[in-house]
Amino acid sequence: MELLHAIEPLRARLHARRRAGHRIGLVPTMGNLHQGHLDLVERARAQCDAVVVSIFVNPLQFGPQEDYDSYPRTLTADCALLEPLQVDWLFAPNVAEMYPQGQGAGVIRVGTPAIADILCGANRPGHFSGVTTVVSKLFNIVQPDRAYFGEKDYQQLAIIRALVRDLDFPITITGVPTRREADGLAMSSRNGRLSSDDRQRAPLLYRALCETADRLRAGDRNLDQLCAQARDTLTAAGFAVDYFTVLAADDLSPALPAQRNLVILVAAKIGSTRLIDNLVVNV
Amino acid sequence: MELLHAIEPLRARLHARRRAGHRIGLVPTMGNLHQGHLDLVERARAQCDAVVVSIFVNPLQFGPQEDYDSYPRTLTADCALLEPLQVDWLFAPNVAEMYPQGQGAGVIRVGTPAIADILCGANRPGHFSGVTTVVSKLFNIVQPDRAYFGEKDYQQLAIIRALVRDLDFPITITGVPTRREADGLAMSSRNGRLSSDDRQRAPLLYRALCETADRLRAGDRNLDQLCAQARDTLTAAGFAVDYFTVLAADDLSPALPAQRNLVILVAAKIGSTRLIDNLVVNV
Repeated sequence: MELLHAIEPLRARLHARRRAGHRIGLVPTMGNLHQGHLDLVERARAQCDAVVVSIFVNPLQFGPQEDYDSYPRTLTADCALLEPLQVDWLFAPNVAEMYPQGQGAGVIRVGTPAIADILCGANRPGHFSGVTTVVSKLFNIVQPDRAYFGEKDYQQLAIIRALVRDLDFPITITGVPTRREADGLAMSSRNGRLSSDDRQRAPLLYRALCETADRLRAGDRNLDQLCAQARDTLTAAGFAVDYFTVLAADDLSPALPAQRNLVILVAAKIGSTRLIDNLVVNV
Repeated sequence: MELLHAIEPLRARLHARRRAGHRIGLVPTMGNLHQGHLDLVERARAQCDAVVVSIFVNPLQFGPQEDYDSYPRTLTADCALLEPLQVDWLFAPNVAEMYPQGQGAGVIRVGTPAIADILCGANRPGHFSGVTTVVSKLFNIVQPDRAYFGEKDYQQLAIIRALVRDLDFPITITGVPTRREADGLAMSSRNGRLSSDDRQRAPLLYRALCETADRLRAGDRNLDQLCAQARDTLTAAGFAVDYFTVLAADDLSPALPAQRNLVILVAAKIGSTRLIDNLVVNV
């Protein structure tokens, strides 16, 4: 694995591989890697001839009150995790390499589709425009044939699919299932910030998703009541719930009674750490 | 020259050429071609191994009160003009091919840099976002090595350069000098709409640019006064002037006294037809 911090040398190396007809896979990450990320890399390795992993904590997708400064940066440990996976290039640019013109209003940003205005988009204004912008840049830098994103960030994955569709990126997007700890907690770089107390309570998020899924499968269709109960349970356990909702799995539209393919989505703060999770249910 | 209306067959043909190491040139147009467009094509032909010309009247860049419906569509004549120039593919998609999800607020649009808010951007809200969106799509469909734009649309060219820079498109942008009629009028698809009376007066735009350039070269630095005089002249001749201004040629910032590389830009309506022109002056 070669570690590259600059765009041009990465492009030069990719150019040669592309000319040779190799399929290129991209795994965009913000680093602080865990097994969920490694699953993405393994999938890319299995489907592509050359694999680029990017690590970039993108300031554009953090709000002014959010945790950009304290977001964990663990490049050495990340390299050690990637080394055995036969990654070709780890692209880890700094902010000046990605935003040489700064990040102000004068610089072009990519917009978002309507589904970016709900859920995390409602709670984190500008977040998804930061995501579509940096992902567009990474797509143009790497020009991958395939790119890999975790299903844990369900809304983000739907937005990336819309980005590829609306702007005609010639890229196949693959969503990779959420990797969970033994107690069900979805793996996330933010889990490391939980106090041991909060870490013990955190799996309640997944438990609430599973209970709601069970009741949906059992035929309960009172979605408002189901979600309100889950919110109450989580609130009683000390979570500050941003949302707990059931939507159509394919396009995040409101779940109609006839809808069979649903997704339950939750975002909640425990202590000062905001966690998200989701579960797809076919009823 | 092969005429293609759909994205996928174009991609398939380009893929083979790219694999063979051929450099691909793109000339994006809205059709109703004149010698100014053909200059772009000839430049592309000279610099690239494969040339794509696109013709698409992009609804996203027209305001509700603008001339989208009446914009001239002359595909047969355009084909006849392109045929001798050894264009490989003419890509002429319809609106449904380019915007299968519609053109509403739910679809992702690309934003604009700060320089899109002045000049034509101030007079045509949303116009340049329509341009950056469709150009991004064309870039992703064709993935050219080089793309060609007319210097007549000076602000648009500066915005396209910002688009490539800010979103890291791996594309070299070439601006091609404005082609003029014998009387100095910049060639434009909109010239055909002028009444014969208006057509006779239209070269005054270029004359005003030249006179202002002469006075700049002669050392006159009272830009406000120079521009006001030009506006008065044009207004007296029956033009409704949107703007007549002198800016820094490299970034369209306000022209400082020490600035040596200037651009004079004008937009004015004559009858119901809005014309633009510009002239770069090194003083």
